[in-house]
Amino acid sequence: MVFAPSLSATRPDWEAIAREFVNALGDRAVIRRKDELLTYECDGLTSYRHRPALVVLPRTTEQVAAAVKLCNRFRVPFVARGAGTGLSGGALPIEDSVLIVTALMKQILKVDLDNQRVVVQPGVINNWVTQAVSGAGFYYAPDPSSQIICSIGGNVAENSGGVHCLKYGVTTNHVLGLKLVLPDGEIVEVGSAVPEMPGYDLTGIFVGSEGTLGIATEVTLRILKTADEIAVLLADFTSMDAAAKSVADIIAAKIIPGGMEIMDNLSINAVEDVAKTNCYPRDAEAILLVELDGLAVEVEANTDRVAQICRENGARNIAIATDPQERLKLWKGRKSAFAAAGHVSPDYYVQDGVVPRGKLVWILQEIAKLSEEYGYKVANVFHAGDGNLHPLVLYDKSVPGQLEAVEEMGGEILKRCVQAGGTISGEHGIGAEKRCYMPDMFSAADLETMQWLRSAFDPLRLANPDKVFPTPKTCGEAANAQAPAQRLVEGADRF
Amino acid sequence: MVFAPSLSATRPDWEAIAREFVNALGDRAVIRRKDELLTYECDGLTSYRHRPALVVLPRTTEQVAAAVKLCNRFRVPFVARGAGTGLSGGALPIEDSVLIVTALMKQILKVDLDNQRVVVQPGVINNWVTQAVSGAGFYYAPDPSSQIICSIGGNVAENSGGVHCLKYGVTTNHVLGLKLVLPDGEIVEVGSAVPEMPGYDLTGIFVGSEGTLGIATEVTLRILKTADEIAVLLADFTSMDAAAKSVADIIAAKIIPGGMEIMDNLSINAVEDVAKTNCYPRDAEAILLVELDGLAVEVEANTDRVAQICRENGARNIAIATDPQERLKLWKGRKSAFAAAGHVSPDYYVQDGVVPRGKLVWILQEIAKLSEEYGYKVANVFHAGDGNLHPLVLYDKSVPGQLEAVEEMGGEILKRCVQAGGTISGEHGIGAEKRCYMPDMFSAADLETMQWLRSAFDPLRLANPDKVFPTPKTCGEAANAQAPAQRLVEGADRF
Repeated sequence: MVFAPSLSATRPDWEAIAREFVNALGDRAVIRRKDELLTYECDGLTSYRHRPALVVLPRTTEQVAAAVKLCNRFRVPFVARGAGTGLSGGALPIEDSVLIVTALMKQILKVDLDNQRVVVQPGVINNWVTQAVSGAGFYYAPDPSSQIICSIGGNVAENSGGVHCLKYGVTTNHVLGLKLVLPDGEIVEVGSAVPEMPGYDLTGIFVGSEGTLGIATEVTLRILKTADEIAVLLADFTSMDAAAKSVADIIAAKIIPGGMEIMDNLSINAVEDVAKTNCYPRDAEAILLVELDGLAVEVEANTDRVAQICRENGARNIAIATDPQERLKLWKGRKSAFAAAGHVSPDYYVQDGVVPRGKLVWILQEIAKLSEEYGYKVANVFHAGDGNLHPLVLYDKSVPGQLEAVEEMGGEILKRCVQAGGTISGEHGIGAEKRCYMPDMFSAADLETMQWLRSAFDPLRLANPDKVFPTPKTCGEAANAQAPAQRLVEGADRF
Repeated sequence: MVFAPSLSATRPDWEAIAREFVNALGDRAVIRRKDELLTYECDGLTSYRHRPALVVLPRTTEQVAAAVKLCNRFRVPFVARGAGTGLSGGALPIEDSVLIVTALMKQILKVDLDNQRVVVQPGVINNWVTQAVSGAGFYYAPDPSSQIICSIGGNVAENSGGVHCLKYGVTTNHVLGLKLVLPDGEIVEVGSAVPEMPGYDLTGIFVGSEGTLGIATEVTLRILKTADEIAVLLADFTSMDAAAKSVADIIAAKIIPGGMEIMDNLSINAVEDVAKTNCYPRDAEAILLVELDGLAVEVEANTDRVAQICRENGARNIAIATDPQERLKLWKGRKSAFAAAGHVSPDYYVQDGVVPRGKLVWILQEIAKLSEEYGYKVANVFHAGDGNLHPLVLYDKSVPGQLEAVEEMGGEILKRCVQAGGTISGEHGIGAEKRCYMPDMFSAADLETMQWLRSAFDPLRLANPDKVFPTPKTCGEAANAQAPAQRLVEGADRF
């Protein structure tokens, strides 16, 4: 689990480098003291830690560009970090690297309600975007569970999802344009306020690239009109199959809910222990939460239909709320599920995999088998509508060997997701954590193609190296995709 | 207007090369006779013509790969062509090139209704996809006007749009995965049947790349459930402003129609001369066609609201149809608008630009001014909901100088689109026609970034060279974006 830098045989002269950063960005923008660096050793994936050599906190695009250019000059890698809430270690520093933190770039630069656009700096917190426009009847759709603490820059890097992504799509569907600092320090603008653009979709390639293609310094987001009516329906079931079958039937009935979530018995009890919603029956095998939005007539018709489907599948009780406070109450348990897992167990390990909707029951059975086999309880919470699982494996980090065991178990879950025709990440990214599983879902040629693209942007491999892609050093034989140097050089004389 | 090949100082030995193609693909898959090559001199942009040296008609992915590998071996460029209906010259051959035609790859390979996926070869006609699944209650959303003759391969290359793209998005929103033959002949698969994928979005970068990154040989498409109810509303107005204002008001009322189209007086009369629908009043300054789909209750409520908005904006008459035959009748004029322009004028030149919705009235005034200035009539037909204009400039190709004049006028329209914050192509692509306008909307750094990406895939510049990007030879000073050879070479030793 060592993520050594891929660069420099000799250690860089960090004192000299730090002086240059202070000259370029000012004293207060540069952090060198070891105790202050501690904060930045990890992101939301706390089991991986590395202290960076230097942390810089730019406030403008030009300062980010200056920082990246200095990294180029000294040939040291850099890692971008937003709010540090990522769950796959995408912002994990490399020891001999510069960590470029965008947390102070928290300005909402432009609100254009006529064209439903907002332009923000990357440090702006996800939830602030909705706050800024909700008074005028708009909102920003992607809503990760961490939305009150995660920043737009990180959302862009990881292509974050959330409860409402079933109907409205993930971050990439809401980013129209970007101002970027490329890995060589050049500033470019990609995309535009108009969604249909000629040329290559550079905006699309950047969203989800996890810091390997540069740093976004301005983000143009699409905002949506708030729905006229919203209803939340909570149904409880005595079997997981019945809940999963209801999900399939709702989609088959041509209803696309704003969100559709399932929690299993262990999650329900964890939540009721901690958040005490008194809404989720402790003896239910599964609860299904469905949010419906749109015109009042549409929501009314759809709510009736969803309730009917749940009843046909054997739901015991159905609660429906349209009042905002009542809706929040029904959602409260789901929103606090991760925190609750942290209360009922010393530690929890959250996995993020995807299966085709039709394989939900199968994968839950597989997870149950693995839970038995490895001896760790698993609480399941998931975006059922798009087959995105979040099994929470409960363990105790202080017991030697447990972390390694649950990580191995998490890997087995991912392998089964791939086997079912799914993927190894729905919305948390690959980061440092999952790169060794990339060859499970991509062929050598597929990974090589991604490397061509990466090398086109970052031939020196300075931008968040050792993330996303497997390397022989970390993943051993699995890392069979090396960038085709010969290919690039061969054609270079043609330009 | 000469698109000379960028390769080879000496002419290739085409007799010898043709023999190798016959060996690899069989005699019947290779076309060499000059009279037979005539068919392939141009695509839908008939004002540009070049005879390719060789045409090949593969039937499998392996045959496409074999053809591309031969092009690599002989260092001759290749151009991919689907049905040849493109309107920007994206499939225009280069004289010393191989034209790889996918028209015989017309197999629907897989229909997976459970997961709403269809896998097709690139030669499958757009409309066939809907035909294949409509019996089961599904359809394929992107619907270019040419949908009964254009093929999915071309739709992918040009990221085609259509009437229904306002609500459902363009081709890129419906392509989940691709089997590709890369410019060096390697076969890779990108994307998957599950929409949320880790790694770079290679599917997204390929869609709309206009044949410059390789050839798609299998395409996994998302299909949608047919709506329960569809209504079409036709409103006629005595002013274009009132029609455009209605569009803005409909969107502001949180209604996203399946389609929302405007035609101006000249288009209306051309259509009534030719298609004789008797639906479009000849004295109207503009008609607005709005299609609403969804649940019956939703469509009913939205139709009432749209009718009310149109009335408030001064609509004279409003016709509403829900019966399929009646709906088709209302759409008929719009669908035959291009053909009608061809009947009322010896020739017409169709432009494709986009402006933010709020600038529709302004751009139409600008087009009217240009029409006056240049002395050519312009019939306007457009996807009003997304600001995508299709001005049809009426002219006579047989009169010397007219083609050049209307092309210049078309360029002026595009420049004004960019000035208004729009783009130079909504759905027809850049191809051969518009590459000299790329610097009007992209900076040198933006274009350079696209070139890095292109060079990563195609360092030898064999895949549809001289398309999309400006070159000094064709565009003179405008072509200020050269691929940064040094950048690629410099880092190559790091891999």
